Amino acid sequence: MLSGGFLLGAGRHGQRSQGAPEEMTMRLTTLFGRTMREAPAEAEQIGHQLALRAGLARQLQAGSFALMPLGMLALRRIEAIMHDELARIGAQELRTPIIQSSDAWERTGRYADYGPLMLRVADRSGRRLLVAPTHEEAIADLARREISSYRQLPALVYQIHTKYRDELRTKGGLMRMREFTMLDAYSLDADTAGLDLAYRAVGAAFERILARCEVRSVAAEASAGEMGGSETVEYHVRSAAGEDQLLTCAACGHVANAEVSLADAGGRCARCGGALLAAQTIEIGHIFKLGTRYSDAIGARYQSAAGREQPIVMGSYGIGLERLLLAILEQHHDGAGIVWPREVAPLDLHLVPVGRGARARQAAEALYEDLLRAGARVLYDDRDEAAGVKLADADLIGLPTRLLLSERLAEAGQIEVRPRGGVARDVELERWRGAAV
Amino acid sequence: MLSGGFLLGAGRHGQRSQGAPEEMTMRLTTLFGRTMREAPAEAEQIGHQLALRAGLARQLQAGSFALMPLGMLALRRIEAIMHDELARIGAQELRTPIIQSSDAWERTGRYADYGPLMLRVADRSGRRLLVAPTHEEAIADLARREISSYRQLPALVYQIHTKYRDELRTKGGLMRMREFTMLDAYSLDADTAGLDLAYRAVGAAFERILARCEVRSVAAEASAGEMGGSETVEYHVRSAAGEDQLLTCAACGHVANAEVSLADAGGRCARCGGALLAAQTIEIGHIFKLGTRYSDAIGARYQSAAGREQPIVMGSYGIGLERLLLAILEQHHDGAGIVWPREVAPLDLHLVPVGRGARARQAAEALYEDLLRAGARVLYDDRDEAAGVKLADADLIGLPTRLLLSERLAEAGQIEVRPRGGVARDVELERWRGAAV
Repeated sequence: MLSGGFLLGAGRHGQRSQGAPEEMTMRLTTLFGRTMREAPAEAEQIGHQLALRAGLARQLQAGSFALMPLGMLALRRIEAIMHDELARIGAQELRTPIIQSSDAWERTGRYADYGPLMLRVADRSGRRLLVAPTHEEAIADLARREISSYRQLPALVYQIHTKYRDELRTKGGLMRMREFTMLDAYSLDADTAGLDLAYRAVGAAFERILARCEVRSVAAEASAGEMGGSETVEYHVRSAAGEDQLLTCAACGHVANAEVSLADAGGRCARCGGALLAAQTIEIGHIFKLGTRYSDAIGARYQSAAGREQPIVMGSYGIGLERLLLAILEQHHDGAGIVWPREVAPLDLHLVPVGRGARARQAAEALYEDLLRAGARVLYDDRDEAAGVKLADADLIGLPTRLLLSERLAEAGQIEVRPRGGVARDVELERWRGAAV
Repeated sequence: MLSGGFLLGAGRHGQRSQGAPEEMTMRLTTLFGRTMREAPAEAEQIGHQLALRAGLARQLQAGSFALMPLGMLALRRIEAIMHDELARIGAQELRTPIIQSSDAWERTGRYADYGPLMLRVADRSGRRLLVAPTHEEAIADLARREISSYRQLPALVYQIHTKYRDELRTKGGLMRMREFTMLDAYSLDADTAGLDLAYRAVGAAFERILARCEVRSVAAEASAGEMGGSETVEYHVRSAAGEDQLLTCAACGHVANAEVSLADAGGRCARCGGALLAAQTIEIGHIFKLGTRYSDAIGARYQSAAGREQPIVMGSYGIGLERLLLAILEQHHDGAGIVWPREVAPLDLHLVPVGRGARARQAAEALYEDLLRAGARVLYDDRDEAAGVKLADADLIGLPTRLLLSERLAEAGQIEVRPRGGVARDVELERWRGAAV
């Protein structure tokens, strides 16, 4: 980072961090969202059950959830990874409206095509509005207004924003939310060679995002559906409760969504004749080469270096954030609860004093204050609950490191440090505090 | 910060920053959003004109704007200040749905009260939905499900999320957006003494947020309107184009929204008889003591320490982010463009090579690479434009520090550093690069 005030000057709040909140710490007595021993009966998927039991999310109505503070912290960490990886490929964040006029949608034909999946509204003057299920029309419309010359291309933009799809089925819990958060990116290029580059760059960024979230995914050939376009890949994660089916050829390794006819008439791989294996999956991302379908319909054109008017060549790229969160839970848990991947854990440390003695509690309070000053991300279980309850909640919430203080440990000047799912060891509290502060 | 791997371990991406994007840098040739010499005629307010001219925002339909990358960067910096100040008072972020069932709204009576300001929708099965203009019902409903005991109180939660109000007039541009971003916080307390504490804490946090955005505001007595509740204060900023009118007593200093009858029959201060001064303003924030109106209607109750069922006592607190952005522009500009307050500037540095020589351009490219590696937040004007165009754009966009490289400066191994609106000075490039990297 820049080394001093010479360049940036000392702002009015120059002493303070200007990025993330400084005090990402929480006492469990103040945490909004309680843990539950049992998930509600309607939660069928393990990831959904864990989200409810650990207090990450709550259903408010059919297909509609509130993200509670612990779930929101995890979502913000996923977003930070997305911002980081997209900045690396030069993508710029913007934000387009959720409630949109039907005009551009009528021009692309999707006002009719989308059917009941799209909510339609009339405003006070009877004008036709809709709640956007995706944003290709808005981006093409913005490009039409903003871009006139080849000198303004290529452009690569994205947003992390709310979308709504009036899904028929809402049994899937967090997997099939009507209102959900999406990272949607859009590339604007002068030609298909530019689109090829953007498509590869965003695909690679998406794969790095999934890798940093420690989600094992598979890229599959897919059909473009109502989106249109020439080439498309879906990112799937395996889940017994998934609603998609992927076919993988045991011989050539080709993977496709079962909607795409990978099988020949005999039910073997259409490419090589190999045997096909089926797996249930959840789709968490999708990338499309759109071409000029949207720019043609909406009139998003630019003037080429040779002075010709040409349509902008578009690509569209999306990842569903709640589905990604669900996939993380599905892939990172044990019998006791969540085992958060380090980079997306809501907080890093779970501080637990146990027993009725005053010494453990005092040592925990002092340590909590130290950690707070040091800027650590810590959840402090300051409740008057039995040790069994506290330890079960620590396993259920599943933060990467548990710090345990008992009366015996406090008297010996020690603390037990246990990585979630790993082996505990006692270390000297003073030495540990020194390292932390 | 924590000093090493002992505590947090070395994650798979331990070497990388885990917070904000690392590469907050941009070449102007790739920036989505161009500057304009003149604002469109319909933009009447200076803040709105500057937002359009500097490429921060674009109108997409009546009352509906896209935030372009530079505007989005400023919005994210405002959000970071909000997260920071709210974390300091122990508030926890959550997220509730925008599209809501009408059920809770019918119980509080606001489904009827809100009238045409609220968009109403039917889903595919004919169920009544709405696009939420505010979230008291959702929070009370969540509290009803989540809170059962006094031990879970107090709670203080917030979200930064999209709202929609179908405003009749949309001439106000960014001031009167139909779809807008709001910081809305909600306090849940066991009694009015708790509400009083929360109300003061959030009010103080809001004032710190406005101070860090360097917005001069005034707190005014207001009427609760359709929100209900016992005590309420509005935060206003002066603007000739504002749609509110504040009255200030020249004698006792009391300030009130003109909707509140501050004047006695003779048009003088009802409190002290002093003369009243009127000013046009924009409301950017509002805090309410709601009491039990929403929890009574929705059944959000808790069991007290004495075992009695009692309604949760609520408060509601909001700041409009686009209005705050507009207020910043209104209060921080000169004849040439925006003069960003340091903590909300989209980027910190504007690097401008001028002239046709190769040396200035080469020095600028090298410096840009250094700044990029150092994690500086820099906009690099790499266009082939005349010096006058580039310098006019630098003033218009208004980042805090302009770095200018001419052929003469580059030959002398120097760079011109000019704070926006301040005095330029030439410094040695090598020394400056050393400080930056």
